[in-house]
Amino acid sequence: MYGTGTDKMVHSARVPLNQVQIQDEFWNYYIQLVRDVVVPYQWEALNDRVGSAEPSGAVRNFKIAAGLEQGDFYGMVFQDSDIAKWLEAVAYLLEAKRDPALEEIADGLIDIIALAQQDDGYLNTYFTVKEPGQKWTNLAECHELYCAGHMIEAGVAYFQATGKRKLLDVVSRFADHIDSVFGTEPGKLAGYDGHQEIELALVKLYQATGNERYLRLGRYFVDQRGQKPSFYQIQLDERGGKTHWPSGNEAVDLEYNQSHLPVREQEKAIGHAVRLLYMLTGMADVAAETGDKSLLAACRKLWDNIVSRQMYITGGVGSMPQGEAFSFDYDLPNDTVYAETCASIGLIFFAQRMLRIAPESQFADVMERALYNTVVGGMSRDGKHFFYVNPLEVDPKACGGANRKYDHIKPVRQEWFGCACCPPNVARLLASLGEYIYTVQGNTLYTHLYIGGEAALEVAGNKVTLKQTSNYPWDGKIKLEVIRAEAGEAFGLAVRIPGWCKEASLTVNGAGYPLNDQTMINGYARIERAWQPGDILELRVEMPVTRIYSHPLVRANAGKVALQRGPLVYCLEQADNGPHLHEIVLPRDAEFRAGKEDSLLGGIVSIEAEALRLRDEEWPGGLYSSEPAPGMKNDTVKFIPYYAWANRGEGEMSVWVREQ
Amino acid sequence: MYGTGTDKMVHSARVPLNQVQIQDEFWNYYIQLVRDVVVPYQWEALNDRVGSAEPSGAVRNFKIAAGLEQGDFYGMVFQDSDIAKWLEAVAYLLEAKRDPALEEIADGLIDIIALAQQDDGYLNTYFTVKEPGQKWTNLAECHELYCAGHMIEAGVAYFQATGKRKLLDVVSRFADHIDSVFGTEPGKLAGYDGHQEIELALVKLYQATGNERYLRLGRYFVDQRGQKPSFYQIQLDERGGKTHWPSGNEAVDLEYNQSHLPVREQEKAIGHAVRLLYMLTGMADVAAETGDKSLLAACRKLWDNIVSRQMYITGGVGSMPQGEAFSFDYDLPNDTVYAETCASIGLIFFAQRMLRIAPESQFADVMERALYNTVVGGMSRDGKHFFYVNPLEVDPKACGGANRKYDHIKPVRQEWFGCACCPPNVARLLASLGEYIYTVQGNTLYTHLYIGGEAALEVAGNKVTLKQTSNYPWDGKIKLEVIRAEAGEAFGLAVRIPGWCKEASLTVNGAGYPLNDQTMINGYARIERAWQPGDILELRVEMPVTRIYSHPLVRANAGKVALQRGPLVYCLEQADNGPHLHEIVLPRDAEFRAGKEDSLLGGIVSIEAEALRLRDEEWPGGLYSSEPAPGMKNDTVKFIPYYAWANRGEGEMSVWVREQ
Repeated sequence: MYGTGTDKMVHSARVPLNQVQIQDEFWNYYIQLVRDVVVPYQWEALNDRVGSAEPSGAVRNFKIAAGLEQGDFYGMVFQDSDIAKWLEAVAYLLEAKRDPALEEIADGLIDIIALAQQDDGYLNTYFTVKEPGQKWTNLAECHELYCAGHMIEAGVAYFQATGKRKLLDVVSRFADHIDSVFGTEPGKLAGYDGHQEIELALVKLYQATGNERYLRLGRYFVDQRGQKPSFYQIQLDERGGKTHWPSGNEAVDLEYNQSHLPVREQEKAIGHAVRLLYMLTGMADVAAETGDKSLLAACRKLWDNIVSRQMYITGGVGSMPQGEAFSFDYDLPNDTVYAETCASIGLIFFAQRMLRIAPESQFADVMERALYNTVVGGMSRDGKHFFYVNPLEVDPKACGGANRKYDHIKPVRQEWFGCACCPPNVARLLASLGEYIYTVQGNTLYTHLYIGGEAALEVAGNKVTLKQTSNYPWDGKIKLEVIRAEAGEAFGLAVRIPGWCKEASLTVNGAGYPLNDQTMINGYARIERAWQPGDILELRVEMPVTRIYSHPLVRANAGKVALQRGPLVYCLEQADNGPHLHEIVLPRDAEFRAGKEDSLLGGIVSIEAEALRLRDEEWPGGLYSSEPAPGMKNDTVKFIPYYAWANRGEGEMSVWVREQ
Repeated sequence: MYGTGTDKMVHSARVPLNQVQIQDEFWNYYIQLVRDVVVPYQWEALNDRVGSAEPSGAVRNFKIAAGLEQGDFYGMVFQDSDIAKWLEAVAYLLEAKRDPALEEIADGLIDIIALAQQDDGYLNTYFTVKEPGQKWTNLAECHELYCAGHMIEAGVAYFQATGKRKLLDVVSRFADHIDSVFGTEPGKLAGYDGHQEIELALVKLYQATGNERYLRLGRYFVDQRGQKPSFYQIQLDERGGKTHWPSGNEAVDLEYNQSHLPVREQEKAIGHAVRLLYMLTGMADVAAETGDKSLLAACRKLWDNIVSRQMYITGGVGSMPQGEAFSFDYDLPNDTVYAETCASIGLIFFAQRMLRIAPESQFADVMERALYNTVVGGMSRDGKHFFYVNPLEVDPKACGGANRKYDHIKPVRQEWFGCACCPPNVARLLASLGEYIYTVQGNTLYTHLYIGGEAALEVAGNKVTLKQTSNYPWDGKIKLEVIRAEAGEAFGLAVRIPGWCKEASLTVNGAGYPLNDQTMINGYARIERAWQPGDILELRVEMPVTRIYSHPLVRANAGKVALQRGPLVYCLEQADNGPHLHEIVLPRDAEFRAGKEDSLLGGIVSIEAEALRLRDEEWPGGLYSSEPAPGMKNDTVKFIPYYAWANRGEGEMSVWVREQ
């Protein structure tokens, strides 16, 4: 049997959000947007009060299940999860800053949720309202445990934020019920959900309650996945072949939901990207809490496959619209890409968990890449429009046109989705951003992300307050000031030297500090000393505009280059450069001028370059010609950060540009 | 009302195949292959005697419908058309060269077909055997008129070949029945088929029988298409929404089958490519026979859209797998392409009909392009394996792998298809190749294709025999010798100067003949004189290796070049060049060495070039890198004609190559 390790691995605990006050010009905008716009807007959407958007039905479903309203269930079978994710986002906002009005709304919603719970602890409005006789009969497709997991995350977060136990008790009772239903013991269902999520949620519930039953149950779901014969096939047979979705694939396409093999035997990232990343997050959590090295090794193996063969430069993952899934190695098309916002959020979760176990900068590098490019790009500057799919090359003529391979690509962000997974996922991630900046491992405080603010953390018994200031991601001067260090004892401060950075320097109280094999550890510069209040560590990471190339086997990017500056990937947009972006070529010796434009797109550093552009007016006519190709003319082109694209109407966009 | 023209346009008649004896090294192989292998092999397949291939059931369906066997209908609703296309191919073989054994098999099959015809003339095994109550209730999806059209083509061809009327009478009775069922008169169905074909077939039946009723009926089907309200929607409603195919799209997606607008109002090629091209062929036929200029204008408009915006360099058309359809202008992806073999055959039909009306070399250029590249490439050298889809860039790792957007791409030719439209279509085209070489317009004999052999034609009352000899497509020396010219009067010989040709020269009996605005007409060099037996016209079209570029708006080919030599488009194959073809770059100044290789792929001219290749071994590792891109190394690469690819096992292939 797997997972017999019983000792925890040394790992960093979660950083409570009330101990990390973010004060950062770049991020304050987004976090405030989540507080002022996104969360209120989503509350309206969940209550079907956004007239122009697709209705949600999610709140009403709970009211109906609670007996407070009459009516039919509306929406996806997993509609409950939108409520849970919203509530989780609210909890993080409250944890960082109490807000009585918001808390009152949340308390009211929790009261309804509690009323919707059944006597045995079961909680799911679809099966309560619409198919009461079919509970737990279709794990592959119907996502009861997925919804349960999100509600558990909400319950834990709300308890951590407010100390209020009501939702925590609801989800604990639900978890107890799940524990009575699932397992390998006779009379139990030896199953697991088609959409992973419950695993990581149960570890959170264990961490919040200390009840090891939840950790064991989480480990059970991890270990049971992919055992033969297929649980989904057994249930499909028991249902007489009946499927929930018309395609019916989810019960038989075991790769789609990563149940084709036991998790430790999976060699490549495959199937639905969000599912895989939630699964890996749960695996890392279980490994951390049980000391299961084989599980950690499985996490590393799939991490390596994802980041070295299947990740876009933007931190997008899952390159196929079919199944919202990973493809094969190096298959990273830019125009038919999927790269769901939720998948990049899942990648950040997974990276965070790996960082808690193993503070290696590779994890933080990927976290930063996904965060500053795909995740921030997933939301409009107004907080009311979202990308589900994050392409790296867009021609609006193709979107919604005759060629259906582009059907999933939207040239502008959408209001709300029938399957509204991404918007509340963005909200809960941004609302909890304080969790991702620091970890403490042994007597070292690691800084992974350069986001300004003050953090109060305990480092080997020493109460430490650290203040971070920077103008990141626009420049690379980062100042860490020790505000408090009670014990007066030596401890380590470790700062990440980003993978994209070729030139970094460090000073401590103004004195240079060498960066070399002795002072660098796993990508971090670590300085151990008896840090005193007033001590200042200054890191300078140079941010020249940098040309980035893809691995030679990425066919889609052959002969192409992308620009990156600091953590930000750049793109060309039609708004700055006119149409036909594929006619632009960047000479190898082109120089770049990066400059701050405060009035553009909320304030960005844009990049101008002297490029070449096809003289398409010289084309002799016809579809094919043996005339020499038209020459190139000089043209100044302008790049903007990828995250800021599609905020100026519909137009072409391209990250990768031909180089000559 | 449209189509009120009643005068024929001046147009060339069909050239009977017994008047064109092909003697040509390149084509003899394929035509003999059709006679010796393809047609016998397909007969076995149609009789379900090819063990390893998908069963057909087509012959057995006719036996069951004829009451000769018991059993259920098997196969697609349009399975009958495979029989008809095979019989049509047999007819062309017999027309060119009688073969008593083959004729006996065909006669036997025709006897069965005749027995399967119902008393009222109706003929369709699916509706006779499987759904006898549902005749004519689902024109959008069930293709009874499409099957009828193919059987009519077979009946006409068999009559022309053998003089035997049995099948001609069967299809005439069927056409009479169709005429009694369809029309705008009260009590008739004001409908038309979801898959065009009947239109062109009825014109052939008119031409063979002289019965104008068939021409009127063909014109009716052309004119009625796309009239509002939608006939398909009416039938769908009458069926209570029942559809034949699970998707049910065909009745509601009117663009798919080009019934979204009346044919004269259609501005762009859209929808299922084969349907559109069969429709255009029928439109051109009706225009020629009725003198309908608006119909001819519609043909020209859609021709222009296809060849100037939606055609691959290989003559492939229909770039989308969804719906086997045309996409939007300039959307010509090389790796997710469809480019069905049948669609290129349809393009050749359409070009042939346009040539009969208007001898302009643009039509013959496209005919040649499709014929020498996609169509010949659609069949293996052994005559038993076929491409349905003809990609321009293949990575076998992608085919059948995780990414389903490549599902339709096969890296090697397949044995037979459940939907077996392409193999018999290739057979009937190659068997009738003699029809495509010459036309006679007024007192001019036009030579469109350079295929050796002897043709006996009547030119303005003058019986002329012309002998063509060349080593085409390998070199461009073409000799036309007048063998017979009875009347001794002046007539014109016009020879096409191919669109790809930059340097051509002409001699008559050894004396140079200038090519200029006076002697050139619509792309043909025309020489009028009292041609005498023994007169020799020699044309020399230079065939250097030529770089071809795509229109700047073809995004897929930006920065890329293809090689063409004569009519042949070339490609790189892994068999010659190893894997990772996308790492190859062709410098603008690279020289080419073209050389005949008699032992390679049946004898080809291959092209060697000094190219550059990415030093991928220098890649620093990781998926993305800011290190300078690896340099290029010199490498000799080899191109082969596109039509010959995939005859040496699975491997990568690419037509378009990056240029620097």
